[in-house]
Amino acid sequence: MIIVLKPEASSEHTERLLASISAAGLKPLHMPGSERVVLGALGDERILAELHLESDPMVESVKPILAPYKLVSRELHPHDTIVRIGGMAIGGTVFQVIAGPCAVESRDQTRNTALAVKAAGASALRAGAYKPRTSPYGFAGHGPSGLTILREIGDELGLPIVTEVMDTADLELVSLHADALQIGARNMQNFSLLRAVGKAGKPVVLKRGMSAKIEELLLAAEYLLAAGNDQVVLVERGIRTFETATRNTLDLNAIPYIKQRTHLPVLVDPSHGTGVRELVIPMALAAAACGADGLLVEVHEDPAVALSDGAQSLYPDQFAALMAALGSVVRAVGRQM
Amino acid sequence: MIIVLKPEASSEHTERLLASISAAGLKPLHMPGSERVVLGALGDERILAELHLESDPMVESVKPILAPYKLVSRELHPHDTIVRIGGMAIGGTVFQVIAGPCAVESRDQTRNTALAVKAAGASALRAGAYKPRTSPYGFAGHGPSGLTILREIGDELGLPIVTEVMDTADLELVSLHADALQIGARNMQNFSLLRAVGKAGKPVVLKRGMSAKIEELLLAAEYLLAAGNDQVVLVERGIRTFETATRNTLDLNAIPYIKQRTHLPVLVDPSHGTGVRELVIPMALAAAACGADGLLVEVHEDPAVALSDGAQSLYPDQFAALMAALGSVVRAVGRQM
Amino acid sequence: MIIVLKPEASSEHTERLLASISAAGLKPLHMPGSERVVLGALGDERILAELHLESDPMVESVKPILAPYKLVSRELHPHDTIVRIGGMAIGGTVFQVIAGPCAVESRDQTRNTALAVKAAGASALRAGAYKPRTSPYGFAGHGPSGLTILREIGDELGLPIVTEVMDTADLELVSLHADALQIGARNMQNFSLLRAVGKAGKPVVLKRGMSAKIEELLLAAEYLLAAGNDQVVLVERGIRTFETATRNTLDLNAIPYIKQRTHLPVLVDPSHGTGVRELVIPMALAAAACGADGLLVEVHEDPAVALSDGAQSLYPDQFAALMAALGSVVRAVGRQM
Amino acid sequence: MIIVLKPEASSEHTERLLASISAAGLKPLHMPGSERVVLGALGDERILAELHLESDPMVESVKPILAPYKLVSRELHPHDTIVRIGGMAIGGTVFQVIAGPCAVESRDQTRNTALAVKAAGASALRAGAYKPRTSPYGFAGHGPSGLTILREIGDELGLPIVTEVMDTADLELVSLHADALQIGARNMQNFSLLRAVGKAGKPVVLKRGMSAKIEELLLAAEYLLAAGNDQVVLVERGIRTFETATRNTLDLNAIPYIKQRTHLPVLVDPSHGTGVRELVIPMALAAAACGADGLLVEVHEDPAVALSDGAQSLYPDQFAALMAALGSVVRAVGRQM
Repeated sequence: MIIVLKPEASSEHTERLLASISAAGLKPLHMPGSERVVLGALGDERILAELHLESDPMVESVKPILAPYKLVSRELHPHDTIVRIGGMAIGGTVFQVIAGPCAVESRDQTRNTALAVKAAGASALRAGAYKPRTSPYGFAGHGPSGLTILREIGDELGLPIVTEVMDTADLELVSLHADALQIGARNMQNFSLLRAVGKAGKPVVLKRGMSAKIEELLLAAEYLLAAGNDQVVLVERGIRTFETATRNTLDLNAIPYIKQRTHLPVLVDPSHGTGVRELVIPMALAAAACGADGLLVEVHEDPAVALSDGAQSLYPDQFAALMAALGSVVRAVGRQM
Repeated sequence: MIIVLKPEASSEHTERLLASISAAGLKPLHMPGSERVVLGALGDERILAELHLESDPMVESVKPILAPYKLVSRELHPHDTIVRIGGMAIGGTVFQVIAGPCAVESRDQTRNTALAVKAAGASALRAGAYKPRTSPYGFAGHGPSGLTILREIGDELGLPIVTEVMDTADLELVSLHADALQIGARNMQNFSLLRAVGKAGKPVVLKRGMSAKIEELLLAAEYLLAAGNDQVVLVERGIRTFETATRNTLDLNAIPYIKQRTHLPVLVDPSHGTGVRELVIPMALAAAACGADGLLVEVHEDPAVALSDGAQSLYPDQFAALMAALGSVVRAVGRQM
Repeated sequence: MIIVLKPEASSEHTERLLASISAAGLKPLHMPGSERVVLGALGDERILAELHLESDPMVESVKPILAPYKLVSRELHPHDTIVRIGGMAIGGTVFQVIAGPCAVESRDQTRNTALAVKAAGASALRAGAYKPRTSPYGFAGHGPSGLTILREIGDELGLPIVTEVMDTADLELVSLHADALQIGARNMQNFSLLRAVGKAGKPVVLKRGMSAKIEELLLAAEYLLAAGNDQVVLVERGIRTFETATRNTLDLNAIPYIKQRTHLPVLVDPSHGTGVRELVIPMALAAAACGADGLLVEVHEDPAVALSDGAQSLYPDQFAALMAALGSVVRAVGRQM
Repeated sequence: MIIVLKPEASSEHTERLLASISAAGLKPLHMPGSERVVLGALGDERILAELHLESDPMVESVKPILAPYKLVSRELHPHDTIVRIGGMAIGGTVFQVIAGPCAVESRDQTRNTALAVKAAGASALRAGAYKPRTSPYGFAGHGPSGLTILREIGDELGLPIVTEVMDTADLELVSLHADALQIGARNMQNFSLLRAVGKAGKPVVLKRGMSAKIEELLLAAEYLLAAGNDQVVLVERGIRTFETATRNTLDLNAIPYIKQRTHLPVLVDPSHGTGVRELVIPMALAAAACGADGLLVEVHEDPAVALSDGAQSLYPDQFAALMAALGSVVRAVGRQM
């Protein structure tokens, strides 16, 4: 429920209302605005009805939050949330590009790729130290030593680090090294991980599951916000369909849909979204045109020898070409690089 | 097979080769270029092997067409095909917009909408006289009288007419009134219709089936080209997936994929591709950014009373806003409106 | 609307009610039962409300048909419809098996396969004279001469013939030779064909489209019934999903769903539903167990040389094994072979 | 690689071969059979080639394991694995039924349901103490106290307990109370959990992810076997498709496909596989007919008040009817209840 107070409501009155919401077993929210205070109450709406808040003299209106996701919804929070990862702000007027290799394979490979993406204008480095792999026999990342490499390169080059955490047991260590915690597509509904990451105090980059409905992505984000963290960036990375020409079907419909309904920023991952190197640049431009707040792109110093995702990783000169091409599209929709 | 002749091959020699291809029961193709002649041979490639064309003294090379679609492939025809519908050229440097109501409901409704889309800059009018409807009790279009209305409005306003043909029995009448024949998503694999429309001598607008793989769309186009018609425009209009927030999932991956592999122009239909009015403009911009040759958009003078597709039809002022927004994105990718 | 009359309603009164339904522009239906008469009225339900039938002294109750499909629904027609194709009755207590090759390739191939399936206990012969093919270069069937072969073999062996019609232009010829007209998956929403076939006076075997929702299949059947033909057999033949291990995903959920909501019989095609010969027998048994009224199975005298669908066609001895295995499952669910 | 030894190979020779496989960095497997010994070597097959095992005098043949899953494959292990959960054996001649409520809501609700399913013939009790929920505001289970309830009821009634573990942090506690650990559909690719559960020394019930290809399910099982646990039961529980009439599309094709390629037993969950109570019984019969080794079924003493999955839970008398109907189908395919 959203409870809009009258301008003349005192802070004591506001406190009393919050206390009564809490006493009824609901989660109270306090959202002071420039003109009036708005309160929220999350939980069983039947209980709320019994509080008869609409008859309180200082309450102007009470209305339900229609979406199943509450904290994530623009109904409750109309203004865009800006997520800060290191010095990078996602969700404002600047279109941000996070790039790097699929995995930390070695210090040299990671550093060379990081140098290349920084030179071309990327704002942050992405790479995996822990890699989810369909087969138990695939390369699953270097783990802790990969994290160390990432942190050192991030510090050297002044690039914020975005890397995946796959297990609550690794959360402390990953949090120590990363500037933002990525939750991968396969873990989007790993609810134990969502709850733990929500409490870790780090910005989160949450990827859509490969067969998740948009509403399910928003409810996964709701787990993070309900745990006290509103620094959440969503990522559209393609969904699983019958089409086999591409690895996934990039669902760009999701971008304006999410932007209209939520206050969280949303990135597009055209690498996983296509699985085909030749399609990455045009889909990155499409992402910018339809309102995404930035990109998550795989780049490798030499994709032909990459241990994973080689077929979808850009060569460094292709990434530079992408950055050059992005500018005019980004400006055409009223943003900057 | 693609047979590249040496520059010194005489026209008599070329004729002899074509005749031997034909005599072997294969379909010969003659593609003279500025520097040398290229021949094609379509059919059972095992038969072709027996002709031993690679040992002919005037043959420089023989290579297979790897794609299952042949005439549609860039392997055989590297340059972009430009399709002319009335005075409109699709596939060149101009990004074209075809707009109009889902159906011809009345002369006034069609004319008012046509006036609005023309004023905003549309190049052609789309509207259905024959409507495929999931239920036998839905409005299925006015048929012949709808065609007459379309032709008269097209002539009055100087707008080429694109309209759907659903049955070989209606083909002659629709051809008489339309500037281009649309084959709808549900008929993309109506092979009898494809064969008949391929011979009708009119440009064709071929929509992707709602569960058609891209390769199947290209093979459907191959039916048209194999029947002698290369004036074919493809349309991505969304595919059926598990996502229910939108009517379909617009598969923009298909645009660069198709442009890279075929010489045919491709449009995007963001109206069916989303099914949600609020998503049409951003997805139209995304289509322009990833290389589409134009749009097919539903506009209605008053969507609230539309007999079909009201929820996805733009209001005239929204269409004008779309046309205004498109310009800078189209220019950002090196094309014009 | 369903209008239940009181037992004492006279036939004159019934006629008057039907006339008033008709005069209002709705389609009247007359369904005399053993105890009382039920009327139906199809069309715009708002108009019907104005007739105030519920206040007629001889009307016991008026209730809406909730399903979007009306004539197909059990709400309107509670008892199972039995469809007769030649001497075979589908939808009763006997589980029926229709078998044969994908296509008529030659008289010998068709006759040998027909002899084998008849010997093993099949009740009807299926084979295509007109074949829908994804590529224009595939074998598309022998057309009229294929029909002649089918008719002669059907007459010789006493097997009813089920074969596909793909175009309204071929309808008369196919009707002349076939005992039942099959509408293929790709034509399930070819509404012109549905309307024409509905009027042809032959039983229809309607296959579910590869991405058709069950409701869309039932609405396609509604086209046939609305055209005056209630001799319609539905076929579940697998839907298109992300799974690539099988050609399609056989949706057996559809069988009890359809049986509970409609009065039409439903067959299962485990050949297209799996695309893999080794899966055909177990899925055929599953179909019998969950309530299907029979099977449509592809069998070829020598699948290794089949011009189409070889990988999913049973060898004759496998078909015999299937028929032997079916008996006890069919009896386990209370039916007979 | 599969290395088949000659009958006369000594155990010393066998040891030496295993040691050389191990020394090359590959995982050795020892599979003594009644007539001869078979060895396996898992890992990079290029390394293996350098061992030249095929030239060893005691090696009869060396052949690659073609499937990407190795330990799970029948190529390596041709005979059916029987998984023992408490006193219940899954994968043998007896068709086993595991039933119970979605969640432990209270001791009474769980015990009453357990009594009912035991009386009707179920072999084990399923119920969740930890529940994955799409929304953070849904009932997520009673956790540890739910486990206690389950253990006590299991001991009282002599029913083995199958319950879900969602987090590596809960693994020890769940292992202490459960007879088998269930990995839910959303966690099928939670690789950290798979690795930890593989080492826990308890039988595992692994559910197919809602958009997992069959091959991905088998690779998820491979994680468990690679961690040393071959007591793994697979579960087909429906996949996500475009169909909205049912909650999921039960993919029974997967049953014979899995049984032909792997030695692990496979159950069917017709409750999640349909999401509709009325479809559960027919789909359970279909599962038995196509070769499943048993069922996982949701039953609730009063589904109308269930905190989760009420719409798909059977009433106790429906479950009794299911058990009664199963017998003859199970016997029809040569098994027993």
